[in-house]
Amino acid sequence: MEKFDVHILGCGSALPTTRHFPTSQIVNLRDKLFMIDCGEGTQVQFRRSKLKFSRLNHIFISHLHGDHCFGLPGLISTFGMLGRTAELCIHAHQDMSKYLDPILDYFCQHLPYKVTLIPFETKKPELIYEDRSLMITTIPLKHRIPCCGFLFEEKAERNHINREMIDFYQIPIYQMNRIKNGENFITPDGDIIPNSRLTFPANPPRKYAYCSDTIYNQKIIEQIQGVDLLFHEATFTQSDLPRAKETYHTTARQAAQIALAANVKKLLLGHFSARYEDDLIFLQEAKEIFLKCQLASEGLYINV
Amino acid sequence: MEKFDVHILGCGSALPTTRHFPTSQIVNLRDKLFMIDCGEGTQVQFRRSKLKFSRLNHIFISHLHGDHCFGLPGLISTFGMLGRTAELCIHAHQDMSKYLDPILDYFCQHLPYKVTLIPFETKKPELIYEDRSLMITTIPLKHRIPCCGFLFEEKAERNHINREMIDFYQIPIYQMNRIKNGENFITPDGDIIPNSRLTFPANPPRKYAYCSDTIYNQKIIEQIQGVDLLFHEATFTQSDLPRAKETYHTTARQAAQIALAANVKKLLLGHFSARYEDDLIFLQEAKEIFLKCQLASEGLYINV
Repeated sequence: MEKFDVHILGCGSALPTTRHFPTSQIVNLRDKLFMIDCGEGTQVQFRRSKLKFSRLNHIFISHLHGDHCFGLPGLISTFGMLGRTAELCIHAHQDMSKYLDPILDYFCQHLPYKVTLIPFETKKPELIYEDRSLMITTIPLKHRIPCCGFLFEEKAERNHINREMIDFYQIPIYQMNRIKNGENFITPDGDIIPNSRLTFPANPPRKYAYCSDTIYNQKIIEQIQGVDLLFHEATFTQSDLPRAKETYHTTARQAAQIALAANVKKLLLGHFSARYEDDLIFLQEAKEIFLKCQLASEGLYINV
Repeated sequence: MEKFDVHILGCGSALPTTRHFPTSQIVNLRDKLFMIDCGEGTQVQFRRSKLKFSRLNHIFISHLHGDHCFGLPGLISTFGMLGRTAELCIHAHQDMSKYLDPILDYFCQHLPYKVTLIPFETKKPELIYEDRSLMITTIPLKHRIPCCGFLFEEKAERNHINREMIDFYQIPIYQMNRIKNGENFITPDGDIIPNSRLTFPANPPRKYAYCSDTIYNQKIIEQIQGVDLLFHEATFTQSDLPRAKETYHTTARQAAQIALAANVKKLLLGHFSARYEDDLIFLQEAKEIFLKCQLASEGLYINV
């Protein structure tokens, strides 16, 4: 199986503590790195992860609250000092330029590489990145300001050739592409050999959904249906439900309800409020609803 | 002796590492806190120091490089979330407003307290803060951009009353202020009792000088003459002297030469480049010139 990991660089919420860094994650798909959110201190956490800075070309910012983007200026500067030359694309709400442009103008006049802001809409799902093996789509969320999650979908691989059967039917090389694409083979005698006899099915494409920050929002369920891994914010516990509603955040129990309704394979909880002394309270609460549940923590990486 | 401590929150240079945070310090004079510089991650280091956020009302930024100010937005936001109401004064070069105003406008619209930028000149020494017990003066430095160090000077205390002698000479209470101010006492018989018999001398006022970032600059020696503690940057070692000159930084040896020429009581080295594996190399180099020398490190606090 090709590499598809999520690295947690920070999983605290707005108030940083000595236990948690503010939000940042790296998705590693086949050694291409994609950063989601970039709170203060992200560059040091990135360094700690031992992932290669040079493998990162795209950063996705869910929304413009400081705990999700105040690490960008330092990260951008550091990349410059390290001699980066490759373009860095930052995908975010259009207001990102109001924040970042003055900083780039003042502090980064001699940056040896280009920073490109790519704005996205936050009201409906939008395909914002695509390459040979991956699609990234926004997941509209409901927060105090415009906010999106991100759905990382592997593209379906083509079927794998069954070498033995290819030899057996003496299928010529120029037909191989068609076979990989699922076509049957017709022998010189006109017999039809079904594709299923000539190939092994490809690995099913995997999906990772990142949903933070958001109030409990059932509208996302359809889009994240059946994902292999769901990261969902669980800022509060159920005892602070009024506070969760007021601040447009989710409780651990509600996150588990979303996971259950979306029939996801695994739930990863994060964005923990600093008010709780022990994060285990989030896990206990979520597990009452949805068993395949895990707590995010700085330094954790998890296979999708 | 009244409290006069320097707490090191970060003492690395521009490239943050897992060993050092970028620059920030807290000067604690009689439980009033003064922050010098505010690199990324400062708020968490401040929290770790166990000093009280509410005791901080003044921040001094030496210059507008990211490793000295990228922690401000997070710190300001966090103070807001914690319900701060007292004004926060930020003393810096006038360009600070180009950096901070857009951030305050976008992220801090509902801040429950006032942030006031107080610009200072960087070309000649200027008194930028004064209260009953303290004066803070800028120390013009030579760096790639306008930059100042800061001289913290305790004000001279009045002499302490020698209670026994006051009783012996039956000096009336209303005379006490004059005696504290150094006047002699004249008895009803016309005898002159010299002040030195009636008081103990006050503690000599202490001085702390912060000098970072700067190229080796003998012009500062006069202003920091005889300070109790000198923090001087030592970004490089002597083997990287050309690099130090090129980037307008100082070597450990040069910092020690400044300390020696200024006849300071103690030298504290910091702003270490990430290129050296072991900071002890700075100490060894400096001690060849100036023995009373110590390395800064995160979490260290030192009595002035």
